[in-house]
Amino acid sequence: MRIALDAMGGDHGPAPNVGGARLALATNPDLTIVFVGDQAQLDPLLAAGGLPGGRVEVFHAPHAVEMKEKPAEALRRKPDASIFRCWELLAEGRVDGLVSAGNTGAVVAGGLKTRRFLPCVHRPGIATVMPTAKGRCVIMDVGANVFPKPRHMLEYGAMGSAFARHMLNVARPTLGLMNVGEEEGKGHELVQKTYDLFRASSLNDRFVGNIEGRDIHRGAVDVVVTDGFTGNVVLKLCEGVSEFVLGLVGQEVVAGLPNDRAAAAQALKALVAKYHYSAFGGAPLLGVEGVCIICHGSSKDAAIANALGVAALDVRVNLNEKIVAELEGLPANGEE
Amino acid sequence: MRIALDAMGGDHGPAPNVGGARLALATNPDLTIVFVGDQAQLDPLLAAGGLPGGRVEVFHAPHAVEMKEKPAEALRRKPDASIFRCWELLAEGRVDGLVSAGNTGAVVAGGLKTRRFLPCVHRPGIATVMPTAKGRCVIMDVGANVFPKPRHMLEYGAMGSAFARHMLNVARPTLGLMNVGEEEGKGHELVQKTYDLFRASSLNDRFVGNIEGRDIHRGAVDVVVTDGFTGNVVLKLCEGVSEFVLGLVGQEVVAGLPNDRAAAAQALKALVAKYHYSAFGGAPLLGVEGVCIICHGSSKDAAIANALGVAALDVRVNLNEKIVAELEGLPANGEE
Repeated sequence: MRIALDAMGGDHGPAPNVGGARLALATNPDLTIVFVGDQAQLDPLLAAGGLPGGRVEVFHAPHAVEMKEKPAEALRRKPDASIFRCWELLAEGRVDGLVSAGNTGAVVAGGLKTRRFLPCVHRPGIATVMPTAKGRCVIMDVGANVFPKPRHMLEYGAMGSAFARHMLNVARPTLGLMNVGEEEGKGHELVQKTYDLFRASSLNDRFVGNIEGRDIHRGAVDVVVTDGFTGNVVLKLCEGVSEFVLGLVGQEVVAGLPNDRAAAAQALKALVAKYHYSAFGGAPLLGVEGVCIICHGSSKDAAIANALGVAALDVRVNLNEKIVAELEGLPANGEE
Repeated sequence: MRIALDAMGGDHGPAPNVGGARLALATNPDLTIVFVGDQAQLDPLLAAGGLPGGRVEVFHAPHAVEMKEKPAEALRRKPDASIFRCWELLAEGRVDGLVSAGNTGAVVAGGLKTRRFLPCVHRPGIATVMPTAKGRCVIMDVGANVFPKPRHMLEYGAMGSAFARHMLNVARPTLGLMNVGEEEGKGHELVQKTYDLFRASSLNDRFVGNIEGRDIHRGAVDVVVTDGFTGNVVLKLCEGVSEFVLGLVGQEVVAGLPNDRAAAAQALKALVAKYHYSAFGGAPLLGVEGVCIICHGSSKDAAIANALGVAALDVRVNLNEKIVAELEGLPANGEE
């Protein structure tokens, strides 16, 4: 399969994209990567990077959307920027998917402009995978849609389920709705109406009801449904809390050990790496035709490689077909 | 001063309330505690607890609101429940404040029914204090108001500032608005309008703008303003992530140490205790007349003691007067 890589995306420019591609090509023999970016910058990196020649192409796109640029403006002013070129290649059928560590808003905006939604999808959303005490869970949406309608949330539940089932091999995924308390009737109108939609839908058998913030990492459910505002705060807060707590452990536990300081520091470092977002692949934009994996802006080689691996798996399992099948089971009451 | 303690509140019944009161009385010589609860349960605990007789009273209130009970129903069906009695004592001027580890919704509902809002306050909110890499920060609201208006959020900024200044001794508190990105214009309508209100208000000089989830624990600001839905998720998520990460450290770092395992386990335990929510006092409901401190349902002695200490400090510094002064500086454009 062929994946377009937004080679200009991310805080660190093309280098980690090239490094990540090398890693991903080594572990995915069916993968070809189309680097979309500035040929002048890419050629020397590719020449030095030792990538297998026959499985790498470059599509010249000299412009890039800046990380702080407003997506709608970028679409108007730089329609030829690398991320938008990736979407065009996808729309033209020249690649099966794309990976970008660039401006998330621009990635989403490009998809919404260029691609159709999958049948039965009213709004795409971004899913992300998090480690929990019991394994992994999928959270959706983490930022594509900051003010969704209940129907969108219901569809996130279906899409997240398909993701958990076919990408994470959870045979019977359970679903929870992010809320401020477990009891029915909690929260604002959006979650109350969403709760009712889940209960009245074919997803009811896997819907455990409302969950609270502390339940995510306890592994209470396999799929957490939330609006893109809350989900985005959750995603970034987890990063901040982990960083803070692990920093304290370094200072207040490891640094004071009389004999095992080096061993403990090493184990702590391994722990940080094992649970770092880069080890959990990128975040798929689900609900549009084609495959799109969004990476953290600060991604380095390992994170890019993981995201490319996720994109390849997504194509291999034909996730979109599975998503459509899941959505077809929902009550056809349109957008609410 | 006199503080009413909802002796029936919390997951563990009256025992931690009595234990916490003993600790708080020892460190707050100006404090008298009015236990509001079932006299038959309290008398033996108080007799065994060694509390200073002259500084303890019991107000008999045999009924309690259950943790899972709906607040509005509880108000109708059990108007004489311990938490509502606490509010009545406050309304009658027989105590200066109250502390409860009971059903948070019922605590808030009792306050809204029994007490007036402070001048200039349109909606009360719950503040909480969190540790950060640079010290502490105040987050408001963490659950009183799950769908606030921009004006309420502006007032949370003013109330949170007064709290940081007078309770945490931050001379010039900085303020941030919880959002999905730092740039102006990010997020949904509520945060966009709130952003504009802050910029147009007397709080502008301390308003750093939008912050993201990862900024809280980095100590980016002293006061984080957010809606009660997001704030509640943030509060509980922090608990879940800390628990998860510290559990991993125990398993993957401490357990494997050849020589210092016991010392490391001890240091980890101390770290958990130092940053546990119980060490950060209860969460004040700000914006109503009187002082109300809400505790985590699972509070034990130390958490109750801390909350009583916060209530006492709140009365001592006359926080409500400071809040009103802060609010008087806001543009008087009423509720938006």
